[in-house]
Amino acid sequence: MNFMNNTNPIGIFDSGVGGLTVVKKITTLLPNENIVYFGDTARVPYGTKSNETVIEYAIQDAKFLQTKNVKIIIVACNTVSSIALDVLREKFDIPVIGMIEPGSKLALKKTKNNRIGIIGTNATVNNKAYSSFLLKENKNIEVFEKACPLFVPLAEEGLINHPATKLIAEEYLSDLKELNIDTLILGCTHYPILASTIQEVMGNNVELIDSGTAAGIIVKNYLEGRGLLNNSNNLGTSEFFVSDLPKRFKEIAERFLGRSLKHVHKIDLETIHNLL
Amino acid sequence: MNFMNNTNPIGIFDSGVGGLTVVKKITTLLPNENIVYFGDTARVPYGTKSNETVIEYAIQDAKFLQTKNVKIIIVACNTVSSIALDVLREKFDIPVIGMIEPGSKLALKKTKNNRIGIIGTNATVNNKAYSSFLLKENKNIEVFEKACPLFVPLAEEGLINHPATKLIAEEYLSDLKELNIDTLILGCTHYPILASTIQEVMGNNVELIDSGTAAGIIVKNYLEGRGLLNNSNNLGTSEFFVSDLPKRFKEIAERFLGRSLKHVHKIDLETIHNLL
Repeated sequence: MNFMNNTNPIGIFDSGVGGLTVVKKITTLLPNENIVYFGDTARVPYGTKSNETVIEYAIQDAKFLQTKNVKIIIVACNTVSSIALDVLREKFDIPVIGMIEPGSKLALKKTKNNRIGIIGTNATVNNKAYSSFLLKENKNIEVFEKACPLFVPLAEEGLINHPATKLIAEEYLSDLKELNIDTLILGCTHYPILASTIQEVMGNNVELIDSGTAAGIIVKNYLEGRGLLNNSNNLGTSEFFVSDLPKRFKEIAERFLGRSLKHVHKIDLETIHNLL
Repeated sequence: MNFMNNTNPIGIFDSGVGGLTVVKKITTLLPNENIVYFGDTARVPYGTKSNETVIEYAIQDAKFLQTKNVKIIIVACNTVSSIALDVLREKFDIPVIGMIEPGSKLALKKTKNNRIGIIGTNATVNNKAYSSFLLKENKNIEVFEKACPLFVPLAEEGLINHPATKLIAEEYLSDLKELNIDTLILGCTHYPILASTIQEVMGNNVELIDSGTAAGIIVKNYLEGRGLLNNSNNLGTSEFFVSDLPKRFKEIAERFLGRSLKHVHKIDLETIHNLL
């Protein structure tokens, strides 16, 4: 294990661009931290792959971040968080933070009527990761889930406040609206991009839970407790690595982060495969 | 090489479900033919992968069809057609028909004002497969291309005549509408699902070209010329194989084909990898 210094970066990975919403939250919450991001754009999406494959890829992604001497790893992908978190924690000395636990805990804290909605990809809804965690923590919770597969391509295409997005959101969310939930977990890291439309459709009495924000708070507390917060007065740096199509990643990343990026590095899958 | 019999099936493959629109066209045009379809749903999408990877996967897909003694292979995927067709033709004794050439030739036959539009995925538009072929055939053609990435997820979600789909189509197609094209190539096998909306937005003066129909005519002529048309009086059978998630494939396939399917077989990627 490498000696951990408080100036070591925070590592964040996702199968593609979705995890950038988590990067945005982390840089707001912890502006002095350095960040290394890996997006496995050559093998996206993970949600349609078998559990064994997702675990294998997640280990490779985490190994890549380990080569960058990260002090903590954030799994900014709900699919990996729901399938591979235990294996990653077993395999790596570095602490690993997923999306399911922070998002669920924040939702449990916020709900007053114990009725929580969850929206995510087909994979996340089908594997019931959020609902099993919520029900394990509190048996009195009622959970309602809905897959919203078009939200990812709509966010990636930048149709953020487009009337078509609103129509599709109304269609997806109409059942949840009638179920009197007071808390809605955005169970996919792409969805915060569409938060304003989702909020508008659900109404102001429903609190949206962004798992990225929830994870950020946990990361902050963890690093603080171990004296690992970067106490530099300078703004942190961010480095971005992808396994394919860096140009397309850069375009979407700039839209997701709301700032321009200097460079996105491409890492060959061969390199990723051969990490020991 | 196996002895080819006219009752041998027609093989069709795609990275996922899009190629089913080609299956539909073939069964209409050649109702007595038996069909074997392979959808590489474990590795979809191909459009975001490197050329080397697409070629490797395409060879495996074609090898799988070869094990089913197909008499001809239709590459019902524009990405593979634009990247791997030459390699497939070199590697296999069986004739291989792609999407680009039949669609382009039909468009060249139909256009009166020599202004042709092409819509497709980002990959197909970026690699300019259709426009290079069209310009090689006729230097006087003017070609206008537009990527419509949301059309694939909209078709897969079944939002066929949804107002949101119309709004998105209007946004994507507004530039093409102003360019006075008289012919529009649907350069993605998913797009025929949305043909009525696309036609409505483009207006009735623009002829839509479905590459699947164009390929079907070429396949028919080829088989006819070699005495390989199935001259049985019975309706042909269709067998469907996928590399992952057969249940989801079956749902979408029934919507795309407009009929129910008895069974979708799952083939392990391991089996595909090990084909000699």
